[in-house]
Amino acid sequence: MMKKPIIETVLTPALFDLYNHNLHEKNVVVIDILRATTTMCVAFENGAEAIIPTATPEEAAEFKKEGWLAAAERNGITVEGFDCGNSPQEYTRECVMGKKIAITTTNGTRALKQSKGAAAIYVGSFINLNALCNRLKQDKRDIILFCAGWKDKINLEDTLFAGAVISELENHFEVGSDASHIALDLYNAAKPNLTEYLQKASHVHRFQSLHIESDLEACLKTNVSEWIPVYDGEKITTLRNETNSTGY
Amino acid sequence: MMKKPIIETVLTPALFDLYNHNLHEKNVVVIDILRATTTMCVAFENGAEAIIPTATPEEAAEFKKEGWLAAAERNGITVEGFDCGNSPQEYTRECVMGKKIAITTTNGTRALKQSKGAAAIYVGSFINLNALCNRLKQDKRDIILFCAGWKDKINLEDTLFAGAVISELENHFEVGSDASHIALDLYNAAKPNLTEYLQKASHVHRFQSLHIESDLEACLKTNVSEWIPVYDGEKITTLRNETNSTGY
Repeated sequence: MMKKPIIETVLTPALFDLYNHNLHEKNVVVIDILRATTTMCVAFENGAEAIIPTATPEEAAEFKKEGWLAAAERNGITVEGFDCGNSPQEYTRECVMGKKIAITTTNGTRALKQSKGAAAIYVGSFINLNALCNRLKQDKRDIILFCAGWKDKINLEDTLFAGAVISELENHFEVGSDASHIALDLYNAAKPNLTEYLQKASHVHRFQSLHIESDLEACLKTNVSEWIPVYDGEKITTLRNETNSTGY
Repeated sequence: MMKKPIIETVLTPALFDLYNHNLHEKNVVVIDILRATTTMCVAFENGAEAIIPTATPEEAAEFKKEGWLAAAERNGITVEGFDCGNSPQEYTRECVMGKKIAITTTNGTRALKQSKGAAAIYVGSFINLNALCNRLKQDKRDIILFCAGWKDKINLEDTLFAGAVISELENHFEVGSDASHIALDLYNAAKPNLTEYLQKASHVHRFQSLHIESDLEACLKTNVSEWIPVYDGEKITTLRNETNSTGY
């Protein structure tokens, strides 16, 4: 019997280097549920053409001069002078259709850049959970589920999403590290009501203090997009699964 | 109302520095369930006088010349030429009563040394769970539950024990980080049968290949000791709670 590929889970960027041996043979899924990777999936669902993640707001601003949308978030807040921040609700069809977007965020951008060198780097969120998992099954490669966390700390929402992916894939892959078991069992405990469960997440408290609570609901919408954003080390474009999206 | 002290959980030594601000005001509990901190608790229950954790086997061997027991484990195995390794079953009353022990282990020793500077550094295991929690309640200080992990990776058994401590303390303390919530919810899911649950832990697989499976049972015995080992930055001695132990 063929050996199943392995799913490992990295719960914070501070631990990524422990898992990146033979990175060129592995798929990485970058996960920043609240909110960078959710926002990227929404932007593509609403017709964005490409996204470039930049390390700094200054770098994102350079792209604005060439007619791109420029988005910058730091500590949960839109940086002054930018078109958008990091809320999926800003990335409407009217705003992003046909556009290229340069974006910098606190955690998600950094995790994307750390993943450079992987066989494929996918952008994951509840928005495109099924489409992503179907793609991972087709690829049949070892997987690193890479949680962006919050400033190197582990967070609940990214861990839960890693668990959701493992829950979809566990019959096709080997659950390959204790961190993967932790994510899966946490998801199984939380899935009856994710929104209620995440009320205790530190980032949700951060949200409430920023008056952007409704983003949580937007970030937990599940399987409303068939697009799978893929990062080539420079820019993010999309693959599309065959079945039709129900629309965001 | 007085603010409750906070419990934070560090799931691997690689993340400790994110939590060690104002360390001198916090209690740290070092957790290496399979097996260093369990073994230390068993040694004190069986009459050991003091334990010095050393960074290297060579350093432990120096103490042997002065009549101490010397114990050294690397990658799960007793280092050649040493009296003991890291199995709690080796630390019998006959072997350790009245003895001083120098010990070096793969992960636990390092976590102890990283904790230097804390208000108090306690050694935790299922063996002394209740005694430890009573002490933490009396101290009323902020707590870092410090999981030793396995070579900087997160493991199930240390995370579960952190959850067990939080479960005992959650009415008296604030559950203060997403990692603490993860540990608590994982423990709640696993507690109906910890032994069965831990069959999937990577370290248990490591154990099985080392023919020391029965250690798992010894490491999950709960509340059989009232001694609380305390590390002063050089050596570990014990505090004792008032109620009587049932004996190991």
